[in-house]
Amino acid sequence: MEFFRMRSLRKTVLLAIVASVVLVVALLHSWPTRAYTTVDVRQRPGPIVERHLEERLPEPDQRSTNIAYRLKESVAGLLARNGCVCEGESGGVNLPFAQLLFPRVSAHPLHTAFDASELEEMKRRRAKEYQGFQMRSQTPVDMLIVAEANNPLQYPTQGVEVRPLKTILIPGLALQDLPRELYTVNFTSTLGVLNVAAEVEGVKVKGDGEMHMTLMSSLLPNLNRQLQFVSYTNTLFHPSTADTVQFETEGHQAMFTIKIRHRVTPKLYNTGPKGEYNISALVTIATKTFLRYDKLQDLIDSVRRYYPTVTIVIADDSENPKTVSGPYIEHYIMPFGKGWFAGRNLAVSQVTTKYLLWVDDDFIFTANTKLEKLVDVLEKTTLDLVGGAVREATGYTATYRQTISIEQGEEEEGDCLHMRRAFHHIIQGFPNCVVTDGVINFFLARTDKVQQVGFDPRLARVAHLEFFIDGLGSLHVGSCDDVIVNHATKIKLPWVSQSESDKTYAKFRYPPASSDATHTKNGLLYFKNHFQCLTHN
Amino acid sequence: MEFFRMRSLRKTVLLAIVASVVLVVALLHSWPTRAYTTVDVRQRPGPIVERHLEERLPEPDQRSTNIAYRLKESVAGLLARNGCVCEGESGGVNLPFAQLLFPRVSAHPLHTAFDASELEEMKRRRAKEYQGFQMRSQTPVDMLIVAEANNPLQYPTQGVEVRPLKTILIPGLALQDLPRELYTVNFTSTLGVLNVAAEVEGVKVKGDGEMHMTLMSSLLPNLNRQLQFVSYTNTLFHPSTADTVQFETEGHQAMFTIKIRHRVTPKLYNTGPKGEYNISALVTIATKTFLRYDKLQDLIDSVRRYYPTVTIVIADDSENPKTVSGPYIEHYIMPFGKGWFAGRNLAVSQVTTKYLLWVDDDFIFTANTKLEKLVDVLEKTTLDLVGGAVREATGYTATYRQTISIEQGEEEEGDCLHMRRAFHHIIQGFPNCVVTDGVINFFLARTDKVQQVGFDPRLARVAHLEFFIDGLGSLHVGSCDDVIVNHATKIKLPWVSQSESDKTYAKFRYPPASSDATHTKNGLLYFKNHFQCLTHN
Repeated sequence: MEFFRMRSLRKTVLLAIVASVVLVVALLHSWPTRAYTTVDVRQRPGPIVERHLEERLPEPDQRSTNIAYRLKESVAGLLARNGCVCEGESGGVNLPFAQLLFPRVSAHPLHTAFDASELEEMKRRRAKEYQGFQMRSQTPVDMLIVAEANNPLQYPTQGVEVRPLKTILIPGLALQDLPRELYTVNFTSTLGVLNVAAEVEGVKVKGDGEMHMTLMSSLLPNLNRQLQFVSYTNTLFHPSTADTVQFETEGHQAMFTIKIRHRVTPKLYNTGPKGEYNISALVTIATKTFLRYDKLQDLIDSVRRYYPTVTIVIADDSENPKTVSGPYIEHYIMPFGKGWFAGRNLAVSQVTTKYLLWVDDDFIFTANTKLEKLVDVLEKTTLDLVGGAVREATGYTATYRQTISIEQGEEEEGDCLHMRRAFHHIIQGFPNCVVTDGVINFFLARTDKVQQVGFDPRLARVAHLEFFIDGLGSLHVGSCDDVIVNHATKIKLPWVSQSESDKTYAKFRYPPASSDATHTKNGLLYFKNHFQCLTHN
Repeated sequence: MEFFRMRSLRKTVLLAIVASVVLVVALLHSWPTRAYTTVDVRQRPGPIVERHLEERLPEPDQRSTNIAYRLKESVAGLLARNGCVCEGESGGVNLPFAQLLFPRVSAHPLHTAFDASELEEMKRRRAKEYQGFQMRSQTPVDMLIVAEANNPLQYPTQGVEVRPLKTILIPGLALQDLPRELYTVNFTSTLGVLNVAAEVEGVKVKGDGEMHMTLMSSLLPNLNRQLQFVSYTNTLFHPSTADTVQFETEGHQAMFTIKIRHRVTPKLYNTGPKGEYNISALVTIATKTFLRYDKLQDLIDSVRRYYPTVTIVIADDSENPKTVSGPYIEHYIMPFGKGWFAGRNLAVSQVTTKYLLWVDDDFIFTANTKLEKLVDVLEKTTLDLVGGAVREATGYTATYRQTISIEQGEEEEGDCLHMRRAFHHIIQGFPNCVVTDGVINFFLARTDKVQQVGFDPRLARVAHLEFFIDGLGSLHVGSCDDVIVNHATKIKLPWVSQSESDKTYAKFRYPPASSDATHTKNGLLYFKNHFQCLTHN
């Protein structure tokens, strides 16, 4: 009996021990390891700090309103007006070939992409989406800050940066004041806390570790030594923002921003062995095809004559896809008729080399198609993309250089987009090359930059410069006229009957207006990019 | 005879006229319409202006070196050290399930992805590519500028911006000097020219239209009125850069930057009619599949139960692709085994709606998979991506929240990457949601942001957080635990024999080491992202 009791007792004790261990472990595991703060990331308009700015700008001197001045038209005329006007050039010679020799600028109001019945609704939706975009892209870094004159405060106006939730010393702080009994400076921040990395003799610190900190001393050198140890720690997480810090002393104030963001992580590519440019290791050729397998095969054969091992990526949205195969060929099948830019986006999304070369499926490589020259330009300059030249059967060679500029319009209406056949500068060291904004559909580019800009899959049919418009501000574009690819003829010779596939091609390539107006070129410029007008020559 | 002579005369005259017209037209057409300047866009190290800065910072007070201070460890310890050390946590309890309950931090030196034989060459190539990256991403906007104390000059320290090749008035300029006989200020720029939009009485302007301009007056109010008309015109084209302007008066100087760049062009999406969230208009479901058509069909069937018309984009790199069809299904065929992230990149490259929902091909939608909740979060906050929760057959539900931070390392070695199972804050207004850096493979995101970050097609097999690492600084990430999708079981039940396709799947999903080391997870972190170490728990 005793034995039995002993065993059941041991069992109970064991059970109790196991139970308590489990309980303790569960408790430890669920024990809140830190108190989590909340963060407000809801979309709302700009920060309150902007009001301080208007208060702080000195009132224009009363007397200045009586001072005479004369407008300088040559400069005043260059300044942005209140809104942009959608107009081209009128008049001009009305001869045959006039448009060819003296191309006139035509203007296109973009709201015309929509029926009158749907325009009101589209405007409303666009305004709502635009508002959200503005709230998300606003940053204190773009706010106008003016430095007060005769301010005894010395402080950094630019270049102070901290990684999210990390700590830095704020550089360049000092006070160069007139002699006083007591010197006081204070700091205010909103997305982080202030502190001191060391405590200096003779200086009193209040509010260290908080969003408002005061330093006081009767000895100026000591206060300045303390100012060399002021730290900032970001506490409210955001991947890319800035804190506006107010720095004050008696009778004077200053404002500066601390950028809070991750440093840009590089996206480097393996380039292959040292020495000459190894085109196969550096370049992938990308193209889109639709119903033109014969032309596509001509392209591939011509490429292989000069670059036998370079990878060719082919996006294909033909109705009954044929097999396209061979070494270093990657063939992607898409839903039928998915579209031109969707196919371009697909092809570039698959590239794993440092550079990609875009070609149309009806190009032919020749001895003049020296990719090494284009690689050399991108290896040696800060350009992201360099176009070449396309030669027609007639011998006419085009580089299709375009400059693109945006003129600010009224907020409700949108900006005006201006495209011109032109370029900006010739590139030093590369006399056959220029800097521009858009080029022809034959170009070498940094893969990471092209993938970052992307080809909008909403553009199903005819589109070209939309890629460069989307790339404005991020792509540094060049164009060289000494690297040439041939274009298999497009001239419809009257005695050659159109093949069935040619007919289908024409139907898709030059289709009637799409049903979804926001997916047409002009509808997209209006809605997606918030433009009101397009002018070009 | 005369008649004959008249006709040949007329002919000659006619020919002469035609010839001259052609000549004139040709001349006009080829007449240089403007003199093109050259621009130097070759890659080279930072600008000379940096030297001015070191000269201008006031010398630290001699006496300050004798002032005593005491380090505050709690703050000093948070500052970046000279380089990062690749170490995890050592020791700790060595019980079973210890790693599960108390996950320890492990450290992985990333150079180990390479054989000793190729490491030297890889380091050299990486350094060369990194150098090019640094030269291309450097901008005067990040340079440290310190405002001089007691400077009679008033000037803008932030927020001055001009579009490329355009003109602006420089705001906030003034001189608050002591009385003098003659007041002089001058400006120096490098990427554009200075001018005045109006000429004020009593002020002499020299160098207007050039890169160095001087304003002189004996009347201070007049000089200040003139300073309200100072303009800057960018003349050297670059899509995104900044000009550092030097502003001086006798005995004092100041520096400020003018950003030269295109404004960010919005990429807005049509959202469908007003009212409740129209999921089909707002969301596209994207997934990648490989040899699991049965699971894929289960996913599609479960989606259709709740969202009959939402588009599903499927990237498929199976060896013998089967047809997957149905309304609103887009099926893309890739080269066999092209890879996991290549497939993800392909799928997202095809999305034309405002949001995309990523799902794995073995998920199952349930009544708890309320996409409207996720859409609500992205519509109402500044988040770019919000993850949900994935529920295993056992009932265990995971959100896989990860924080990612980068610690600066020595330049030659690279930075240290730290990942922890954690989050930053709870989101105000959304008590089930938090802000973090990485989430599980079930998330709703802004299409334009995901396309901009991209899934690197070099990652062929196992990869997940690499997307969030590439997205650091651009993606604002959240995670909500109240939107749940089920995971079709992965538990290998011993009595169920593996099908052939299961076996092939396992072979590709968990493969032996790849031949190209830079295309492995660690090799890519080392080479592409320039990291030296990864720590995680």
